[in-house]
Amino acid sequence: MIQQKVVIISKEQLKNLNKAQQCINNSRNSNRLKAFGSCRTWCLTESLVLRNFQILNFRKVQIKDGLTMLDAIGPYEVLRNISNAEVLFVAEKKGEITADSKFVHLNAKFGIDEINEADILVIPGSAITFLREINNVKVMEWIKKINQTTLWTTSVCSGSIILASTGLLNGLEATSHWKPMELLKKFGAVPKAERFVEQDKYITAAGVSTGIDMALYLCNKIVGEAKTKAIQLFIEYDPKPIYKSGNYSTAEKNVIEEAEFILLEEAKKEPELFEEIKGEI
Amino acid sequence: MIQQKVVIISKEQLKNLNKAQQCINNSRNSNRLKAFGSCRTWCLTESLVLRNFQILNFRKVQIKDGLTMLDAIGPYEVLRNISNAEVLFVAEKKGEITADSKFVHLNAKFGIDEINEADILVIPGSAITFLREINNVKVMEWIKKINQTTLWTTSVCSGSIILASTGLLNGLEATSHWKPMELLKKFGAVPKAERFVEQDKYITAAGVSTGIDMALYLCNKIVGEAKTKAIQLFIEYDPKPIYKSGNYSTAEKNVIEEAEFILLEEAKKEPELFEEIKGEI
Repeated sequence: MIQQKVVIISKEQLKNLNKAQQCINNSRNSNRLKAFGSCRTWCLTESLVLRNFQILNFRKVQIKDGLTMLDAIGPYEVLRNISNAEVLFVAEKKGEITADSKFVHLNAKFGIDEINEADILVIPGSAITFLREINNVKVMEWIKKINQTTLWTTSVCSGSIILASTGLLNGLEATSHWKPMELLKKFGAVPKAERFVEQDKYITAAGVSTGIDMALYLCNKIVGEAKTKAIQLFIEYDPKPIYKSGNYSTAEKNVIEEAEFILLEEAKKEPELFEEIKGEI
Repeated sequence: MIQQKVVIISKEQLKNLNKAQQCINNSRNSNRLKAFGSCRTWCLTESLVLRNFQILNFRKVQIKDGLTMLDAIGPYEVLRNISNAEVLFVAEKKGEITADSKFVHLNAKFGIDEINEADILVIPGSAITFLREINNVKVMEWIKKINQTTLWTTSVCSGSIILASTGLLNGLEATSHWKPMELLKKFGAVPKAERFVEQDKYITAAGVSTGIDMALYLCNKIVGEAKTKAIQLFIEYDPKPIYKSGNYSTAEKNVIEEAEFILLEEAKKEPELFEEIKGEI
């Protein structure tokens, strides 16, 4: 069935889209709005741009490689609640993905060969395997290709190191998990210790749980205040952590040491990669 | 290989365990500490009790039934970072589980028939399919069986309605997502609108994202302040949501209406179940 090619944009949405639209106009896909009609799923409501909100995870032939689950699930649980959003979980090869912990397994229904566009791309991080992905030419080329079609290209945690490795953040400010933060420099980005950093259409978020805050911020750009607040209420995001210990710049010394220890244990779950880098961490 | 039966408990940990231990002593498993030795994985470090932290998800034969991903992944991402923790994702039948959104798929490696004990049981919720599970005798019996072996039995979101349906929360205070909260009464529990509620060894958390706070609280009981703070730092949980709109009791009227609309759309993703209950929501 051929779907009717209609896109309705409210005044407010148009305003919200202005900045992103500018990026699009500067990219190869200057005819972006027309392209919506050809999307498999598109909408007559306010979520006009959210056909594909793609969560990228990297999977090698071995299923050992693993993402940090909350990096992906945090933004997903916010953005998937935008009406008519379509979320695809994409891996280098489709199939089972094992998380960094080895305790939980996702089934990626799409391989990167099958996906050629996205409105929002989210690149989650991993405890250590991102160090392998920054040398994965196939994945880097795919990110660059998809980026030419996105309204927003985003990352969580060490996902920003992967994104930076493509060269797309060259000269731009970006953030990451506090541990690999300095690696951003290696790829020409300017590290900034913020919860999330927006530069043009790029939004990079800090470690793991920060993706929730970043996604609410992004959600607000797409559907505005009332609907963003409703999604926040839907997921009851009224955080009250038992301690105030989630910020590296104010964390106690012994707490940082404990956290470094956890990271070290995580890294050891990938013995080969750990062997390569252990002198540097 | 037969593992050596040794468990080392520090003074601090022993104190932390006191309350839970009392529950155990009152249960059939009064010989609990001895039982640790028979666990498949156990540890000589501080995480002595965390052999199985089981995340329960309910899967019918149809894979349509779905959990809310963040309900499960929030607590998982906290508790799995306790050193030597072993986390099992358990479903009624092992295999692929589709989330409520239909966008993401987990592979549950264990069916409930294979799992007979847990140190911590986490029951995540779902948008609507929990209403089916509260009549699922097999699942209810399993929860009751596992509960006899747990140090803590916990839930997130509508998971508390499932837990209550077993009768285990009879006469106890409990919380849930704000939408199905009143259903707790039907099963003899006393609804309390808190972020999480602790009663003996039962900890019920409110909607979706609250599982992160609940898990940090629980983590603190198991490994104490320094390590809990380290895990919080590891996941950079220093939440700064764009709005303050995650609390039902203070949310604006139009925001609640929008959130109700999102829930309605979610419910419609399960047409049969929606048909049964649409008069009541």
